[in-house]
Amino acid sequence: MKLSQAGELSLLEILKKRFGQRSRGVLVGIGDDAAVIRAEKNILLTTDMMVEGVHFDLSWTTPFQLGFKLVSVNISDIYAMGGKPQYILLNFSTHRNSTRKLFDRFFDGVEEALKTYGVKLIGGDISSADRIMLSLTAIGTAGKSLKRKGARIGDRIYVTGTLGDSACGLALLKKIQRTIDFTKRGKKGLPVAWDIAAPLLRRHLLPIARNPKRISGTATAMIDISDGLLIDLSRLCKESGVGARIRAMDIPFSEEMKMTSACLGISALDLALSGGEDYELLFTASAKAEAEAFCIGEITRSGIAVVDEHGKKINVSARGYQHFSSQG
Amino acid sequence: MKLSQAGELSLLEILKKRFGQRSRGVLVGIGDDAAVIRAEKNILLTTDMMVEGVHFDLSWTTPFQLGFKLVSVNISDIYAMGGKPQYILLNFSTHRNSTRKLFDRFFDGVEEALKTYGVKLIGGDISSADRIMLSLTAIGTAGKSLKRKGARIGDRIYVTGTLGDSACGLALLKKIQRTIDFTKRGKKGLPVAWDIAAPLLRRHLLPIARNPKRISGTATAMIDISDGLLIDLSRLCKESGVGARIRAMDIPFSEEMKMTSACLGISALDLALSGGEDYELLFTASAKAEAEAFCIGEITRSGIAVVDEHGKKINVSARGYQHFSSQG
Repeated sequence: MKLSQAGELSLLEILKKRFGQRSRGVLVGIGDDAAVIRAEKNILLTTDMMVEGVHFDLSWTTPFQLGFKLVSVNISDIYAMGGKPQYILLNFSTHRNSTRKLFDRFFDGVEEALKTYGVKLIGGDISSADRIMLSLTAIGTAGKSLKRKGARIGDRIYVTGTLGDSACGLALLKKIQRTIDFTKRGKKGLPVAWDIAAPLLRRHLLPIARNPKRISGTATAMIDISDGLLIDLSRLCKESGVGARIRAMDIPFSEEMKMTSACLGISALDLALSGGEDYELLFTASAKAEAEAFCIGEITRSGIAVVDEHGKKINVSARGYQHFSSQG
Repeated sequence: MKLSQAGELSLLEILKKRFGQRSRGVLVGIGDDAAVIRAEKNILLTTDMMVEGVHFDLSWTTPFQLGFKLVSVNISDIYAMGGKPQYILLNFSTHRNSTRKLFDRFFDGVEEALKTYGVKLIGGDISSADRIMLSLTAIGTAGKSLKRKGARIGDRIYVTGTLGDSACGLALLKKIQRTIDFTKRGKKGLPVAWDIAAPLLRRHLLPIARNPKRISGTATAMIDISDGLLIDLSRLCKESGVGARIRAMDIPFSEEMKMTSACLGISALDLALSGGEDYELLFTASAKAEAEAFCIGEITRSGIAVVDEHGKKINVSARGYQHFSSQG
């Protein structure tokens, strides 16, 4: 069934039925001019847009993955402020000839993510366009929020998990698309075994945002790694007015990433430093604090340096994805 | 200067400088993972997306108008809940070859609207796409919010201003585009005099949302007219579980709309009933209350009827713009 046969009102009815259950805190949900929430604490707000052909490609992303990832990406920003995600608003545009199946699978992915994070969909809009365009606003609460500003000289720098996996998964997807014969079934043509490839693909296609619950008490500054370690670290340092030294050998690599990047002929360190979309948290904490995460370096007076096991500087440049940059 | 020469970070810096002044209530503004606002009252949230070629056409909208209208459209939804708009988050995507001038004029329009409504820009994102794609989230506060639900049988139905002006302005724009010789300067080829055309064009291109301050005390239900009187009235009635009778002769028409629709050979009543984007408020109030607005009918048990001066039913259908409708 094509969406143009369904009608916007009835698509909204479908979403209202699916996501509109009563809940404490939501005074008005889907279906009025605006949603109304009861608020006592400080409110965190973040928003992001995802456009077909720019941020994703339906030839290697399913609608389910797309819905899940759109939520994760925004929840990650709420977590990166030390917040508790609570609600989302979602704008969904697609082609009039899109199928009802695409619509349903997309919202299956959204629903799965809502369950994962304990979050409610409370509003948004549906409209037609010539392809899929999405925007999401996530709303959270926080007692004290953790900013990019706040890192002090001597603080240790931590990340919550392995880096470069998502970028390696993307590189693998591109390689698969170029070389696999899609007319044949099965996983023939994969440059690595499926059980090595799968976690990397999942990390790129179905990223799970990191809950900061265990670390936000000790962190002095925090950001999520969406555009690559070096770019996001630069942002944190800039806001804090400090520099950083990263020890390359202390950056956590997954075995899958190390093996796959070797097969693909890409530098694992490059992927870890400049690969985007890992959605791990990068934070700083006092040298006296004990943080449950991987310590990868420390805050310095100025400049960003990456050093090897002998303390020798490695030549790197912040290359992560940037819109509107001359290299971008 | 092309935007691809500017870099995303520096575009964000420009916006931070322009919109990032400290203000009470904003704990963290533009430039962190999420914005943080202090909240004690109930929070209203609404979001909308505008895509080039779908919702607007740069051949008859300037970037300034676009920025202004994007804000107005969302503020209108906050007003329609009886709320006080406070903050916006804005996602801006455009082509890498877009000019810095387009970027600046767009945000001039946004800034003008922020001043008009006393609202602050506190976050969002900038990215590249193959044309302009915008999404905006507006945040407001309300003691008691006014919903679509709440109209009672016997309540009077009101609108806050003339209807059909925006749709008439759009029809005029389309006519101008088809017939005016753009190689010649001046306003030759306009089917009506400029001082008649101008208010209609302004109404379509630079709509100003209606502040409900004077009426929200008496209203029992409210919605803003974005998709046309009949469609939005149907929504209000559906949520309230009631019907409505509208007296055609009591619908306020502007002189400019009457004259222009006659020149264009379009029915003024059709424009007023089904033309979208007027952004007037439609509300109901008890028959005993005195509302400062145009009374156009009353709430009935069921069904939507439009009657003439003799009380005779006029044959109309709710035709306003709907995405994904089979006629749409």
